[in-house]
Amino acid sequence: MADKSLNRDTSALDPTPWDHRWGFRDTKLFVHPDQSVEMTGSRYNLCGYRMPYLIPFINRELDVTIDFATPRPLTAEPHVTPATRNEAFLTALTAALESDQFTDDDRERLLHSHGQTTTEEVSRVLYENLDRCVDLVVWPESDEDCQAVVSLADEHGVCLIPYGGGTNVSSALLVPPAETRMVVSVDMRRMDRILSVDRTNLTATVQAGITGSHLEDLLERNGLTCGHEPDSVELSTLGGWIATNASGMKKNRYGNIEDLVENVTLVTPGGVIEQRYSSPRQSPGVQLQKALFGSEGNLGLITRAVIHVHPLPEIKKYGSVIFRDWPTGVAFMEALNRTGARPASIRLVDNLQFRLGQSLKPAPSGAKVLKSRAEQVLVTKVKRFEPRTMVAATIVYEGTSAEVALQEKVVAATARRFGGLQGGAGNGERGYMLTYAIAYLRDFLADYYIIGETYETTVPWDRIHDVCDAVQRVANAEHRRLGFPGRPFTSPRITQLYHSGVCIYFTHGLYHHGMEGGDEKFAEMERNIRAAIMDAGGSISHHHGVGKLRRSFVDRVATPETVAAVKSLKQAVDPKNVFAVGNNIFAG
Amino acid sequence: MADKSLNRDTSALDPTPWDHRWGFRDTKLFVHPDQSVEMTGSRYNLCGYRMPYLIPFINRELDVTIDFATPRPLTAEPHVTPATRNEAFLTALTAALESDQFTDDDRERLLHSHGQTTTEEVSRVLYENLDRCVDLVVWPESDEDCQAVVSLADEHGVCLIPYGGGTNVSSALLVPPAETRMVVSVDMRRMDRILSVDRTNLTATVQAGITGSHLEDLLERNGLTCGHEPDSVELSTLGGWIATNASGMKKNRYGNIEDLVENVTLVTPGGVIEQRYSSPRQSPGVQLQKALFGSEGNLGLITRAVIHVHPLPEIKKYGSVIFRDWPTGVAFMEALNRTGARPASIRLVDNLQFRLGQSLKPAPSGAKVLKSRAEQVLVTKVKRFEPRTMVAATIVYEGTSAEVALQEKVVAATARRFGGLQGGAGNGERGYMLTYAIAYLRDFLADYYIIGETYETTVPWDRIHDVCDAVQRVANAEHRRLGFPGRPFTSPRITQLYHSGVCIYFTHGLYHHGMEGGDEKFAEMERNIRAAIMDAGGSISHHHGVGKLRRSFVDRVATPETVAAVKSLKQAVDPKNVFAVGNNIFAG
Repeated sequence: MADKSLNRDTSALDPTPWDHRWGFRDTKLFVHPDQSVEMTGSRYNLCGYRMPYLIPFINRELDVTIDFATPRPLTAEPHVTPATRNEAFLTALTAALESDQFTDDDRERLLHSHGQTTTEEVSRVLYENLDRCVDLVVWPESDEDCQAVVSLADEHGVCLIPYGGGTNVSSALLVPPAETRMVVSVDMRRMDRILSVDRTNLTATVQAGITGSHLEDLLERNGLTCGHEPDSVELSTLGGWIATNASGMKKNRYGNIEDLVENVTLVTPGGVIEQRYSSPRQSPGVQLQKALFGSEGNLGLITRAVIHVHPLPEIKKYGSVIFRDWPTGVAFMEALNRTGARPASIRLVDNLQFRLGQSLKPAPSGAKVLKSRAEQVLVTKVKRFEPRTMVAATIVYEGTSAEVALQEKVVAATARRFGGLQGGAGNGERGYMLTYAIAYLRDFLADYYIIGETYETTVPWDRIHDVCDAVQRVANAEHRRLGFPGRPFTSPRITQLYHSGVCIYFTHGLYHHGMEGGDEKFAEMERNIRAAIMDAGGSISHHHGVGKLRRSFVDRVATPETVAAVKSLKQAVDPKNVFAVGNNIFAG
Repeated sequence: MADKSLNRDTSALDPTPWDHRWGFRDTKLFVHPDQSVEMTGSRYNLCGYRMPYLIPFINRELDVTIDFATPRPLTAEPHVTPATRNEAFLTALTAALESDQFTDDDRERLLHSHGQTTTEEVSRVLYENLDRCVDLVVWPESDEDCQAVVSLADEHGVCLIPYGGGTNVSSALLVPPAETRMVVSVDMRRMDRILSVDRTNLTATVQAGITGSHLEDLLERNGLTCGHEPDSVELSTLGGWIATNASGMKKNRYGNIEDLVENVTLVTPGGVIEQRYSSPRQSPGVQLQKALFGSEGNLGLITRAVIHVHPLPEIKKYGSVIFRDWPTGVAFMEALNRTGARPASIRLVDNLQFRLGQSLKPAPSGAKVLKSRAEQVLVTKVKRFEPRTMVAATIVYEGTSAEVALQEKVVAATARRFGGLQGGAGNGERGYMLTYAIAYLRDFLADYYIIGETYETTVPWDRIHDVCDAVQRVANAEHRRLGFPGRPFTSPRITQLYHSGVCIYFTHGLYHHGMEGGDEKFAEMERNIRAAIMDAGGSISHHHGVGKLRRSFVDRVATPETVAAVKSLKQAVDPKNVFAVGNNIFAG
């Protein structure tokens, strides 16, 4: 039964997302005449003060001088491709839905025609134009609406593209240009209710269009949490998490998406795929459900899921540890993983990213000057850490006081073995907040001809350095070969620990002012970096998925027999290819 | 690369399995003239002493007097159904394999024509006859052998049934009687090598025919463990674990089979299904691999897998806690689960099973008499525990000393909240050893007209009592309705903890001397008990699978659309239905 009290939303912040760019309208970075940078609003702890060190840091690291006088010109009148209309479908849809549940408004069509991949999507829509836009946007409000839309699309020969938070970064939301049918974006975000909470068994049945922040807000008011925190948690949706096989920062405690979802309801042209009995674990034969994680919109609409919820943890605290250099930090992470005492989240950032974090601080004043200097002396003089090699692990502890106490003890003991220095909770918290702010930084810098992108991959323990070296090497070589000015910013962080390896998340940026075709060249470089990652032992993706961006690497991971079997599955649930979004093995 | 040093086997015990019955030839129970019972050999800590209390306990609990004078007559000359021969296939097979790799010997055919389901398989083969036997047994020794066998079967119209340890208890190994083609059992147990061990990433590539005991033996010599311990671990195989979606006793530490396998190689008529890149976690699109867990022989031959291995734990110890009664024990389990400090294994046995365990003890002598009496006084007088209601949780701790210390502390603190009394390591260890011995007890008692079977199910926390009550109620009512003598033995234990519920494992036994059709009536009762379990909120299976035994319940768990999609998958990999073993949704 629906627990109506859960469905309040009294967020004090402006929840309106930006058009095309990442995040919310209350938040943006801007540059002052003195080239200090400020973040508007009050959403993050980076907001509301001047950051004097950021631009000097970027100029120095990229070996360029950003030209703030001539920002990259935005496309004045974005071209929205002419709408293909399927009149029979539109007539039937008008009968099935309310009039405010669909629109062919150009702005909405453009908003729903891309995700957040930098060069293939955001750059295109901001500074150039998209090749193909969706022709209609639909907002279903119930499972019945979803079934009606899917059924009508199947009947009338229409293509559907599921749309969640719009945060996809594998070009999965791009419309295949060759699609000749009417293309409809199905925006799931009105299906954002918690339908029921089971407080004894600690599960909740939730509509798939709920965003992570809304979900956590509703649960928290009831003393609960889901605990799934991908970097996109403020905007991305439950359905999107399942479709991309998302990973959460705190997976050591709460699991990744496949661990915390007990049942998925998928509406396909062939009918509803779901389990009639859901449980944390069973043996009912082939579990088709497991194949829905990572389906990337190719099979149907995910409308709801049964998820795990937890009482809010007794303790939540941050921590950080500083190490001499990257190899020492990596060795610490491996040793800690073997202890079994894994904090909810532990991440290792390299020296460059560590210094990027430091560059976001305000100028110290008064007593803070002394404290800041004293800290610096301790770290660099007493402990002999080199500012240009030291790295940091940032930690989130959650759990009972006994659990957290044990984890802190083991982290401290393990850190000591590797000469680590406790860096305090503040540095830890800043590290996590940076996660949320980094995409705003990308969008701010994009206007000044800086392209930023991230690459994530799963890497066995013994390939970590090979993969990191490969990314660095290829990024440098490609930078020269393609004639970009200055030098690239490439920086890894280890974001997840697993039994046999880790997730590495690379941040890559460069300046392309004065060049022709910077975006296309960057995209070419990105493909070559991905090839190098895989050559060195990394996976095609840890959690972003394949989409269209990485389609050329599919044959490196799947045998032809596997591809054929998955295609047969698609054929069974969607014989007319209504869900022709064309991601992964279905990419053209 | 293969680590050859791993492939020694110097087991001091007789590894020969019994024909048709459970376990090894060095171990059996027999009754002395004074009706004390003894277990032969030295394999278990129950071996080599007289158990004077067992038969009185059984007689009392079943309210019967076992007649040891007239054991149930074994089938004198088991009927092996005439072999269907496909000469073209046999000619081709002779060319492809060595002559010692296949046989149509009647004994081998019979051995490979059943698993360990009590009434449908073991009773049939021991006391009656099977409806249909396999026509040939093949022992592949390599992936190439497997591909050859599958390819020839596909070409010549032969049916293949994969065979691992033969311990299946869902009638999955039974040959569909309507199969008119030649039926070949593919015994995987010669494929029992560890092909490579990766000590840095802590994985191993292992052939699927290795038994659990052999795997652990080889790993242990190298300071490693896989840690997967289903109750059948001595006999069952890696491939069988994957095919049934097996669960291990120590899953809190090592995970269930789906958690510890990173890659599965499945040889199908349509080709090889495997991942070209395996990792603990990735996002490569639809992961067909995940659908292989629970495939129950319907899709192909599992030939190898990449699994997790771990350094041997620093600490391994047993523990136990006694509680006043079952509801108190269940409440303790739920509270402990929420602490997050879950020992590698923790199980709760009800009072009846607790007393069954006690009935396996020797008669105390000398100082032990006093100790035993003192313990009894402490438990029953001082703590006022009723011998007829008290229950026990048995625990295996594994891990670092810090991990185990925390778990012990949390277990003790939580137990105190529920009035629990520490029962010592000995009781804990006995509980786990009983697990291995219980199937020998079934086979011993079967000869004296006692049928024993187990039912496992996943149950949400709030349905535990409903499900237990339903099993008790239906077992009692059916017992009377079907006219069995005495009364049934029905006893639950909670064997696994999960976020939203538990696995309950029921042991059910009864006496059927002097009745007609005891096995068939028991089977009818078993179906009605399963229906009652599911009506009360339990799953179709926690880890035994569906096989043929539970086929009538498939429509309670899978939508027709799900069934259709899985059938399309089968069609893609095995269009001629070579793997016509007919389990689960493919059952006739």
